[in-house]
Amino acid sequence: EPSLTTPPLQAQEIDLTLAFQVNSTLRDPDIIQLGAAFPAMELLPLAQLNRLMGKILRENPGLAHSYGTPNGCEELRSELARRMLDAGCSVPPDQIVVTNGANEAIFLTLKALTQPGDTVAVESPTYFTMLEVMKALHIKALTLPTHPSEGISLPHLEGALQTGDVKACLLVSNFSNPLGSCMDDWKKKRLMELLNQYDVPLIEDDVYGELYFEGTRPKAIKAFDTENRVLYCSSVSKTLSPGMRTGWCAGGRYHPKISKMKSVISFATSMALQLTVAAFLSNGGYDRHLRQLRRAYQAQMSRMQQAIYDYFPAETCVTRPRGAHVLWVEMPTGFDTLRLYREALEHRIDIAPGVMFSASGKCYSNCFRLNTAILWSDAVDQAMRTLGHLAKKQLAELLLRDSHF
Amino acid sequence: EPSLTTPPLQAQEIDLTLAFQVNSTLRDPDIIQLGAAFPAMELLPLAQLNRLMGKILRENPGLAHSYGTPNGCEELRSELARRMLDAGCSVPPDQIVVTNGANEAIFLTLKALTQPGDTVAVESPTYFTMLEVMKALHIKALTLPTHPSEGISLPHLEGALQTGDVKACLLVSNFSNPLGSCMDDWKKKRLMELLNQYDVPLIEDDVYGELYFEGTRPKAIKAFDTENRVLYCSSVSKTLSPGMRTGWCAGGRYHPKISKMKSVISFATSMALQLTVAAFLSNGGYDRHLRQLRRAYQAQMSRMQQAIYDYFPAETCVTRPRGAHVLWVEMPTGFDTLRLYREALEHRIDIAPGVMFSASGKCYSNCFRLNTAILWSDAVDQAMRTLGHLAKKQLAELLLRDSHF
Repeated sequence: EPSLTTPPLQAQEIDLTLAFQVNSTLRDPDIIQLGAAFPAMELLPLAQLNRLMGKILRENPGLAHSYGTPNGCEELRSELARRMLDAGCSVPPDQIVVTNGANEAIFLTLKALTQPGDTVAVESPTYFTMLEVMKALHIKALTLPTHPSEGISLPHLEGALQTGDVKACLLVSNFSNPLGSCMDDWKKKRLMELLNQYDVPLIEDDVYGELYFEGTRPKAIKAFDTENRVLYCSSVSKTLSPGMRTGWCAGGRYHPKISKMKSVISFATSMALQLTVAAFLSNGGYDRHLRQLRRAYQAQMSRMQQAIYDYFPAETCVTRPRGAHVLWVEMPTGFDTLRLYREALEHRIDIAPGVMFSASGKCYSNCFRLNTAILWSDAVDQAMRTLGHLAKKQLAELLLRDSHF
Repeated sequence: EPSLTTPPLQAQEIDLTLAFQVNSTLRDPDIIQLGAAFPAMELLPLAQLNRLMGKILRENPGLAHSYGTPNGCEELRSELARRMLDAGCSVPPDQIVVTNGANEAIFLTLKALTQPGDTVAVESPTYFTMLEVMKALHIKALTLPTHPSEGISLPHLEGALQTGDVKACLLVSNFSNPLGSCMDDWKKKRLMELLNQYDVPLIEDDVYGELYFEGTRPKAIKAFDTENRVLYCSSVSKTLSPGMRTGWCAGGRYHPKISKMKSVISFATSMALQLTVAAFLSNGGYDRHLRQLRRAYQAQMSRMQQAIYDYFPAETCVTRPRGAHVLWVEMPTGFDTLRLYREALEHRIDIAPGVMFSASGKCYSNCFRLNTAILWSDAVDQAMRTLGHLAKKQLAELLLRDSHF
C-alpha cells in the first residue's frame, strides 16, 4: 500500500492543462476503459428503472413533464432523507435540494461558499472534476497530505485552519476517488470538532458510501455534525444510473443559499427522472441491488489487484480500498505514468495518469488510477498484462539509466 | 399599446428582494396562475413523448443510462441544428452544447463571458430569471429602453457601447418576455453591425421564436451574425415539455468555453431525455404540433386581451404581441400593481407585478404581466373580472386622492 501523500502545502492556483488533454480519450468505445471511474452498466438495474419510468409517465404525464420546483419533488426528497439515516444523518426532506448529479451539487456548494480567490482545503490526490469546478470558480486549492486508508492528515488540516485562510473543506468521505481512503468514526468526529473550532464549513461528497465491501455502511462525516455546517452531497450515478443525472445536497445552515443558487443555475431537475428514482428507492429493491453490486465490485477489485501482483514489477504499490471501484497504483519515483498512458493508448488501453489528480498538474507523475468496475474478461486480462509489460519495460530503462550515474 | 420604456440608463446592481417574495406564490396549485409564464400542459404532446421515451429505454437502455458527453448526444445536436435553419442560422452540430433548459444555457454563457463587476446590457423590463442569474454572477445590469413591438432602442444601445463598459448584451430576440417585442430583420441586422463595430458578444434567448402567430418564423439575430459573436440559446420547454429540461447553446466563437463550463457545472445532460427529444424532432410531428400550438395560443391571447378591454379601466394599456403567451399590462402612473397582486392573491389569483422585471426592483410598479397560455375557462373569466374590478377600485381611489391635492 502507498504511504501518506506529500503534496505542496501552500494554497495554489489550479493547472489542469494535462488533465484536459488526457480526459478527451476517456470516452472512446474502442478503447479498454480502465481510466474512467464509470460504474459497470451491466450491473445496474436499468430494466427495472425503465419499467418504473414508463409507469410514472403513463400514470401522471402532467406532473412528470412539469417544471417542478428548484428544490426537487417531495417524494424523492423524502426517500433521500430516509437513505441518509443509514449514513447516520437525520436531515429533514425540506432541507434537501435535488441536483443534476453530484457534480452540480459540488458546483452549487462551492459557488455558495466562496468568492474568486478564496482557498478551499482538499485531500490530495483529488478527484479531477472537483479541481475543474474549483478552477472555474477561481478558487485556490490547499492540498492536504492523505493516507490511502485513513484519509487526510488532521494535523496538516489544523495547521491550515490556523492560518484563517481556508474558506471551506471539500472531501470525499467514504472510499475517496482516487485513493479509496475511508476515515474511521473517531477521525470523522475529530474532524468535525476542528471545523467547529475554526468555524469552517465542510462539503462532503459521499457518492461511494453505499459501496462498502464488509461490515456496515460507513457513516457520513455529517453524522457527527452538531452545528449544521456540513453540506452533504451525493448522487445515484454510481449505484443506479449515471444517465438519470440525479444527485442531491443537504446543505445544513447553507440550505437557503443552495436552494436559491439551484433555481438560478438550472431552475429545476427533470421531474420524470426524479419521480423514477423516488419510485425505485421506495419499492424496496434498492438494498437487494446494492448487496449484489457490492459483492460484484469486491470480486472485481480483488481480481484486478491480483492481476497487478501477477503482471506488474515487484516495486509496484497499490491501494487496498474497502469499497467502491478505483485503485491507485504507485510506481517508483522517476517512473512516468504519462508515458505509460501514451504507450497504453497505442494498445487501445486507457488509464488515468496521476497528474490529473494533482492541483498543480505536477504531482503524482509516478502514479495512476484504474477503474475496477469494468467486468472482467480475457480482453481486460490481456490489457492488464500489456500494462504490466509496459511498466516493466519502462522501469528497467529507468534502473539502467540510474545505474549509469 | 404601451410606449417605449424609460428605465434608468446607468449600470446598476440588481435588487430582487421583491421578486423573490413574489415568486414563492407562483406554483401553488390552488391559485389561478396568471403570473407564471408556464406553457399550457394540456396542449403539449406528452403522450407521444412518453411513447418515444419508452421505446428508447427499451431498445437501448445502456446508452440511455450512460453519462453521455458534456456537449450532448449527436442525434439531438443534429436535429437542433436542422431546426435552427428555420431561424436562418446555419450552425454545425458540433458547435452546439445541450443544456438543462435554456436557463442553464444563459448561466453558462454569462459565466463564460463575464467576471464579477462586469456590466451586461439588457432590455427593460427584463425576464426576472435573467436578472437572478446576473445577480448570482455579480453582474451589473444596464437596462435599455424597449418598445413593446419593436424591441430595444438602438440609439441607447449605441450610447452604451460607446462607453466601452458593456461586456455583453443579453436579449430575448423574438416575443420577449414580458413585453412581447420582436425586432424586424432590418433592426436585427443593424444590431449586429453595432455589436461588430464595438466588438461585443450577444447572448440571444430565442425560446419563443417558434410561437409566432402569423406569417413565417421570425429569424434569429444570429441569422445576421457574420462574425460568430452570437451565443444562441433556446429550449423545448415552451414547445414540448418543461420537465424534459432540454435546452441548448450554439456558442459561436465562444463554443469551447461553453462546452468546458458545461462539463464543470453538471457534467452532462440526461441521455434518456436527450434521445427522446431527438426522436420527437426527427419523426416529423413537431411542425404539425407547432401549428396547433400557435393557433391555440393566438386564440387564447386574443380572448385575454378582450377580457382586459371588457373588465379593466379604460386607462389600461396592453401589449399586442405577435407570438408566444404573455401580456404586459400598464396602468396609469401612481397605480400600485404590488397592491393589486396582494389583493388578487386573497381571491386566489396570481399575477406577476412589474417590479419583478426591473433590475433595480423599483421600476414598472404600475405594470404587471399575465400568462395567456392557461386554457380559457369560466374560472379564468371570473379571475379576469375580479382583477378588473380590483384595478377599477384602486384607480378610483387614486383619482379621488389626486383630486384632493
